Amino acid sequence: MDVIEAVKRRRATKAFDPNHRISAEAKRVLLETSALAPSAYNIQHWRVVDVQDSAVREDIRKVAWGQAQVTDASLLLVLCADLDAWQENPPRYWATAPQPVQDFLLPKLDEYYRGKPQVARDEAMRSLGLFGMALMLVAQDLGYDSCPMDGFDFDAVARIIGLPEHYAIGYMIAIGRGTGNSWERNRIPVADWIVDNHF
Amino acid sequence: MDVIEAVKRRRATKAFDPNHRISAEAKRVLLETSALAPSAYNIQHWRVVDVQDSAVREDIRKVAWGQAQVTDASLLLVLCADLDAWQENPPRYWATAPQPVQDFLLPKLDEYYRGKPQVARDEAMRSLGLFGMALMLVAQDLGYDSCPMDGFDFDAVARIIGLPEHYAIGYMIAIGRGTGNSWERNRIPVADWIVDNHF
Repeated sequence: MDVIEAVKRRRATKAFDPNHRISAEAKRVLLETSALAPSAYNIQHWRVVDVQDSAVREDIRKVAWGQAQVTDASLLLVLCADLDAWQENPPRYWATAPQPVQDFLLPKLDEYYRGKPQVARDEAMRSLGLFGMALMLVAQDLGYDSCPMDGFDFDAVARIIGLPEHYAIGYMIAIGRGTGNSWERNRIPVADWIVDNHF
Repeated sequence: MDVIEAVKRRRATKAFDPNHRISAEAKRVLLETSALAPSAYNIQHWRVVDVQDSAVREDIRKVAWGQAQVTDASLLLVLCADLDAWQENPPRYWATAPQPVQDFLLPKLDEYYRGKPQVARDEAMRSLGLFGMALMLVAQDLGYDSCPMDGFDFDAVARIIGLPEHYAIGYMIAIGRGTGNSWERNRIPVADWIVDNHF
């Protein structure tokens, strides 16, 4: 499916076929392709919990306004970010880059993040946005629908999934066969959010 | 171009043809389509500066490690987030939703963000990630290359573009006709970032 078509067709799907199972191969393509999304300094902050256990899904649904997507979607992915990923063996992020690029970027990376937790967090959250958008569009290409979700108790979900101390939850994405329609789309006009040269 | 193909072909392009001009129609499609990306509560936090003035581009390049993409790309977009968008006439975000949905979500939105600036900021940064990924993939579909950039002095760029007090810069995206190749791609194996059910 063409990108433009996929972007247009993607809607936040609220109802999924609870009997549909996604194949291991579709899941592999989905995850491997989405991880080609870019991230600052190629840090790839995403750490993803694939919630398959129906009891865990039920627990999450209870703290997510009872939303049916949580239990009914074929995949429920909790997108987390490792906020310390920038300092976890960073040379691996640039292993295939020419040596001069590595020599320039590795000290820059350290200077960029060290002692600046808000900078690291902002980056991590953007990375989860980049990764998640790729995930939803690839899902569309594979014939699936999706729903990005943040209507849930983040602390409660963190406890359920055993979130490590230096990680943060970004949002969840449910993926499966949609069975319902949404209301009409609604966007602010482009002219309201774009400016020429400066504000 | 298929989504999967577009995701695979997208690379952070460092060299652009400085003589190429993007058509107004291609730009319209690019911006309108990308804004179909989802955002939490449909808040659409993105506020985008389209830097066309070559003097402004030069000023930004000086505080962006001298990177050539800043001046050479056909489009240089500074992706900013309005951190207060959640409280700026929120009923407009749900104008097309059924009344019961509006009645449920509008108080939820207020409760979700009021007095929680970090929550609002996290959301805004994720929205910029979602929007930017759509932008880069739609660009690919239209035959363009792109480069997401955050190697610059954020405060200096904020001054150059006259960033309003309650906005934050996320990153910049350069779009144009790429003229160079990148090094081999490099990603952490999927097994290193996905876990089943819990950490």
